[in-house]
Amino acid sequence: MSLDDVLSRIDADLSDATDRLIDLLRIPSISTDPAFAQDCDRAADWLVTELSGMGVDVSKRPTPGHPMVVGHAGSGGPHLLFYGHYDVQPVDPLDLWDRDPFDPVIEETPKGRVIRGRGSSDDKGQLMTFVEALRAWKAIKGDWPCRITFFFEGEEESGSPSLVPFMKENVEELKSDIALICDTGLFESKTPAIVTMLRGLLGEELTITAPDKDLHSGMYGGIAMNPIRVLSRIIAALHDDTGRITVPGFYDGVPELSDELEAQWQGLAFDHATFLGDVDLSEPAGEQGRTPLEMIWSRPTCDVNGIWGGYNGDGFKTVLPAMAHAKISFRLVGTQDPLAIRESFRAMVQAALPVDCTVTFQGHGASAASGADTTGAMFEQARAALSAEWGVPAAYVGCGGSIPIAGHFQQITGTEPMLVGFGKDDDAIHSPNEKYDLESFHKGIRSWARILDAVS
Amino acid sequence: MSLDDVLSRIDADLSDATDRLIDLLRIPSISTDPAFAQDCDRAADWLVTELSGMGVDVSKRPTPGHPMVVGHAGSGGPHLLFYGHYDVQPVDPLDLWDRDPFDPVIEETPKGRVIRGRGSSDDKGQLMTFVEALRAWKAIKGDWPCRITFFFEGEEESGSPSLVPFMKENVEELKSDIALICDTGLFESKTPAIVTMLRGLLGEELTITAPDKDLHSGMYGGIAMNPIRVLSRIIAALHDDTGRITVPGFYDGVPELSDELEAQWQGLAFDHATFLGDVDLSEPAGEQGRTPLEMIWSRPTCDVNGIWGGYNGDGFKTVLPAMAHAKISFRLVGTQDPLAIRESFRAMVQAALPVDCTVTFQGHGASAASGADTTGAMFEQARAALSAEWGVPAAYVGCGGSIPIAGHFQQITGTEPMLVGFGKDDDAIHSPNEKYDLESFHKGIRSWARILDAVS
Repeated sequence: MSLDDVLSRIDADLSDATDRLIDLLRIPSISTDPAFAQDCDRAADWLVTELSGMGVDVSKRPTPGHPMVVGHAGSGGPHLLFYGHYDVQPVDPLDLWDRDPFDPVIEETPKGRVIRGRGSSDDKGQLMTFVEALRAWKAIKGDWPCRITFFFEGEEESGSPSLVPFMKENVEELKSDIALICDTGLFESKTPAIVTMLRGLLGEELTITAPDKDLHSGMYGGIAMNPIRVLSRIIAALHDDTGRITVPGFYDGVPELSDELEAQWQGLAFDHATFLGDVDLSEPAGEQGRTPLEMIWSRPTCDVNGIWGGYNGDGFKTVLPAMAHAKISFRLVGTQDPLAIRESFRAMVQAALPVDCTVTFQGHGASAASGADTTGAMFEQARAALSAEWGVPAAYVGCGGSIPIAGHFQQITGTEPMLVGFGKDDDAIHSPNEKYDLESFHKGIRSWARILDAVS
Repeated sequence: MSLDDVLSRIDADLSDATDRLIDLLRIPSISTDPAFAQDCDRAADWLVTELSGMGVDVSKRPTPGHPMVVGHAGSGGPHLLFYGHYDVQPVDPLDLWDRDPFDPVIEETPKGRVIRGRGSSDDKGQLMTFVEALRAWKAIKGDWPCRITFFFEGEEESGSPSLVPFMKENVEELKSDIALICDTGLFESKTPAIVTMLRGLLGEELTITAPDKDLHSGMYGGIAMNPIRVLSRIIAALHDDTGRITVPGFYDGVPELSDELEAQWQGLAFDHATFLGDVDLSEPAGEQGRTPLEMIWSRPTCDVNGIWGGYNGDGFKTVLPAMAHAKISFRLVGTQDPLAIRESFRAMVQAALPVDCTVTFQGHGASAASGADTTGAMFEQARAALSAEWGVPAAYVGCGGSIPIAGHFQQITGTEPMLVGFGKDDDAIHSPNEKYDLESFHKGIRSWARILDAVS
């Protein structure tokens, strides 16, 4: 039986595959919120049952956090490892969703059919593309294409606290010839892409305390330190007027783009007007003198992901709050050292505190940037397979997001990561009304079948 | 029967009076939150029943918001109007309360017995001081001391939207010789005080919108405008490095202190170290070159009462939020014009917005500062009565808070307001664990009996 037979099987099975994905999407596996811990466990169980039914030797593996799912199948040929994550982002603000985020449906839209629901694109839909590709392969060919390892985690959206310890404890089991990671997107929603440059991520939460209790601004207004004002000043000072980040030493290890990569990216003719226009913006708001692709792929950033303090209910309350809080993240590139930057950031905040204020910090993950070495033969084989499926030459691109797992494979198991995904820019991942195009799901499954054929 | 008989009756009735107050405190009449509208109504009914039982001709009077309670009793002599409010502040953050805010109790503390619960000091406990004083007077003397009007509102903590229209519609009914307002405190928790200088209040809520939906900072971080950063910059720029407020024209109408008042305030020997130390602060954080009493009584302020945007739950979410919000209030003095300042503030924010950002504003009340004319005989009579009860000379003082009703009496009914209250600095009004000292309640009732005796 040929690759074409596998592809035909995938086409014929698409409706059932979609039903299976919808079943998985119904489980609200929000990893960052302890209230959903049991649901994360249920999602892991669901995957174990599914892979087990395909003949994979699979088990749920406990961690101090949410469990891993690890499965093995086949033998001979190259050893391919597939990584994905079954956990999802929180869904708030819930009132901006047009339907229950965990009651997914297939919707007809002007741009085609989509699977709507939290996790459809990030990452359950993507994770299922290679599960379904291998299901079809096994059904048609009667055996696995080569030695396969499945490795699914449930903490990717909450900083992956158990990932590194688990990988270190199971190095031999997780060593493979390549780590295939499906958690990225098409370039500009149309060009298949292999991500070879990933930003790191440093997360910091800070709480500034001034008075020891909430005060009445009528009594204390004008004389008491207001922690929201202090926090606002600190945040305002994190960037200078040209958009550069002011944390001392922040740019240590930030490389300039090579002429070669600069030329390749210019060739991509990135349409930033459409990219921004899709979300009702018009002007790139990053560092002055940088191209839009540099801003999202190769330059480091600092953003505030959340801020809160005082009264935020209906009406008005003339309170001077005791505390103000922010969640701040840094996207890192090159050889920027996340721990050195954490230290420098915290020292900068401490130094900026007026008298009577104190600050506490909580770290939320710290991963360096990573890049893939694309010289191995499998990269060009996969690129050809993707080009064949999508009818467009596949590209090596950067990615603004952080996928720390890529660096972990390099550092812990010595495996090169290959990041291939089928998300689109308008998938609204991490946002209300997340969706995954049925085309992404269908051609994603077919893409993996072609890649399996090309590399095995 | 003499004043002493009335005071003895107050002493003997204290336990029952406290039980009645606790009964009123059990009603969660949070006016700013629509979920508690029925409770506000119940609190008004409770007051109608109570006054009616004392023989007052009283009724609940509808408004577009929460109802007013208006009652009349007695005739002859001067016409005294008593004002208080039966609504209370919200109770969040609830987890900082040591007990249910609406299940009040008498607690023994190192500083004496206190009535603990939301509204105990602001303003149900204070409001009940003159109700109980008049109850004792009527019981002992068999009649009212003079013509009395009770005027209680239920929207003081939510900007009093119905107050001015109601007063204008009922000018003749509410005209009196003096308006006695019980919503202030003792000076430094020990000296009885008549407030003669009140700051005004302007409330503004703003929402800054950048992208039209929440974005993933992995995809858009570095290129998309972040509304939290924009809001932080705007807040940080509201004060200069000397603590002065930068809104154009803000200081128009701010008077310097008269030499006479400055000398009187210096005589008060305000202990700002203790005032601030009580809430774990040490340094006055207001305008450079101003005394602590100026900062809280006679200088205008700008404070952030609430800020929120993005993700504030457990864990971390790398979201670039679509919106950021703040509630900002200005305390006003002298002849500062709240509406002109609102306009200037909004124009300043608009001018500070980067491209791709929009802002919407919601006003929350706008009242000018006010001061009382203390030349009428009743001021000195009341001051003598207070001095007699507390054993310390009573003082004319300023107040950092805004009690817009004082100005409304002057402007609408032409009545001079006299602000006398018995709250203490550590009452934690608007904060968790609000309390009212049993001494404040007891001596407050006795103070009103003495004032009634002195002025009628």
